[in-house]
Amino acid sequence: MAKKKTSTESNPKKNKNDLPVGVVGSGSFATAIVKMLVENCKVVHWCVRNEYVKGAIEQRGHNPTYLTAVNFNLKNLKLTTDINELVSACEVVVLATPSIYLSDTMEKMTCGCTDKIFVSAIKGIIPKVNDVVAHYLRDEFKIGFRNQAVIAGPCHAEEVAMERLSYLTVATVEEEVSTKLVNIFNSDFIKMHSSKDLLGNEYSAILKNIFAIGAGIASGLGYGDNFTAVFVSNAIREMETFLEAIYEAPRDVNESAYLGDLLVTAYSLFSRNRNLGNLIGKGYTVKSAIQSMNMVAEGYYAADSIYKTSKEKGLKLPIVDTIYSILYEGKNAEKQFKKLTAKLD
Amino acid sequence: MAKKKTSTESNPKKNKNDLPVGVVGSGSFATAIVKMLVENCKVVHWCVRNEYVKGAIEQRGHNPTYLTAVNFNLKNLKLTTDINELVSACEVVVLATPSIYLSDTMEKMTCGCTDKIFVSAIKGIIPKVNDVVAHYLRDEFKIGFRNQAVIAGPCHAEEVAMERLSYLTVATVEEEVSTKLVNIFNSDFIKMHSSKDLLGNEYSAILKNIFAIGAGIASGLGYGDNFTAVFVSNAIREMETFLEAIYEAPRDVNESAYLGDLLVTAYSLFSRNRNLGNLIGKGYTVKSAIQSMNMVAEGYYAADSIYKTSKEKGLKLPIVDTIYSILYEGKNAEKQFKKLTAKLD
Repeated sequence: MAKKKTSTESNPKKNKNDLPVGVVGSGSFATAIVKMLVENCKVVHWCVRNEYVKGAIEQRGHNPTYLTAVNFNLKNLKLTTDINELVSACEVVVLATPSIYLSDTMEKMTCGCTDKIFVSAIKGIIPKVNDVVAHYLRDEFKIGFRNQAVIAGPCHAEEVAMERLSYLTVATVEEEVSTKLVNIFNSDFIKMHSSKDLLGNEYSAILKNIFAIGAGIASGLGYGDNFTAVFVSNAIREMETFLEAIYEAPRDVNESAYLGDLLVTAYSLFSRNRNLGNLIGKGYTVKSAIQSMNMVAEGYYAADSIYKTSKEKGLKLPIVDTIYSILYEGKNAEKQFKKLTAKLD
Repeated sequence: MAKKKTSTESNPKKNKNDLPVGVVGSGSFATAIVKMLVENCKVVHWCVRNEYVKGAIEQRGHNPTYLTAVNFNLKNLKLTTDINELVSACEVVVLATPSIYLSDTMEKMTCGCTDKIFVSAIKGIIPKVNDVVAHYLRDEFKIGFRNQAVIAGPCHAEEVAMERLSYLTVATVEEEVSTKLVNIFNSDFIKMHSSKDLLGNEYSAILKNIFAIGAGIASGLGYGDNFTAVFVSNAIREMETFLEAIYEAPRDVNESAYLGDLLVTAYSLFSRNRNLGNLIGKGYTVKSAIQSMNMVAEGYYAADSIYKTSKEKGLKLPIVDTIYSILYEGKNAEKQFKKLTAKLD
């Protein structure tokens, strides 16, 4: 389908929500989230990376680098580069930076924040603390799980830009919080469901990046579609094993937020994680594969953290072990995958 | 990867099994199964469609129409066009015709057959009886479930031809039978696992064709990858609901034979079922979509049979209902999918 220019809102006349909501980040997923929110909210506060990005959006009406086809009505936006300005003005703050940049941004936060709702749309480990966002916010900023939410689900930002129907899941401890969030996200092209599995949804989004690296390695090594299907069906079972050990909550891993997100990533040729794996499978060293990409794939950090957690918990996760051994122990991808094939079913 | 010519066996010198085994059918999957079996068996009996196919294989050493790159050593094959000759000579008979042709072939069978092992590699409903192969063999030929097996799993025949690693599952009631079958299928490029879920594996392979039609319709209608991931994650849950209602056996639908097979079909651009759906999604009538294809997709018949069974059992299967309404009730695909989107999560 050809890219089409989309206006700010598909339905500009409807009565809008006046909940003060903000988005932190100016990459493609952050931009997609702003697009979702302007459908429903009178004003969306948006904290972007720097003055250049802010100026460009103000001048052109679109993000200069990501999802450039999405035109915003500037009346709906309150742009800033100051996290304190955004957090002070908002009741709900959606964090949507790459995981490696979150701590740089958050460390600038000096305003009160423990009574706000922080929604993580980040799908990765915070390298500085080698832990997930939910733990980072709780431990470093005293933002309790009851004031947190996680957005998960299969969602290429590019398809949101085109208003192609996408399903998301918002996980919260408090039902009241999820109701509020479902209301500001639901639209003609977004179906938001709620879940009580806060940490499960966060870990699942992180694990799927490791599995996507694996799917890429397999493809780079010359394994075919038959094997990929087997690999993914083993991956979802590893995910279930990990989630069951880590966080107790009602959960069916075949729901969209878990399996769906794994599928959209593992089968996508545009996934950075899958591409990283593909290069390694084709024979690049891990270092040169990483260097050849503009940005380190989230799954690279995730593999280290998840591997260590799985060992602490005594879990048997052959795929995670394999990816870790290739990324961090210098093991040969071809040999490690050959061994892995004997452990899959 | 470029097609490579593969010889009959990757490992011609190993000690071979002398279990008399035969394959019925001369399409691509039948040819792939013969290729798997010549790896392990001294002689593979092969009942092909007609004298032309038999003559062509004898002359050229490969199937004239399907998987033409697979060259057989004729010493390993015992070709025939007579089902009675094959069944009489064999202890294990693998059925691998398209489902719509099985009854034509089986009706010619006059020899004793109730003491043989019949292995179905057919993934469809027998239109004549509107039922699955396991029931057809039991009801029409008195071949009990204990003398039956089902081969399932994600397996493009083309990848078997290239000796790309593939995992299959053989489901039997009797463990002794599955052990025998695992032995004659396992090789460097085939990993065969066993299961006790005879009917579950058969129905799963049939259901996935219906879901692949649905994935194709969605794509034809312009839904994107985000939606496809949601669709597939709902489909596997519908499959689980159906299988639980139909046949009691130990089962995890996230194993390769269920989820893996669904994935390889729903995500394959080469699946006939997905292509049929795609044409319908693009606006072709069902009749013209079917006419434009060389062969009716298995999922077309499956949708009718599975829909009726699900109604008898009182099951709620919104995807199956939707596909049935489009294929058999003349309903508009766009409208039906719009309604379906409200039922998915």
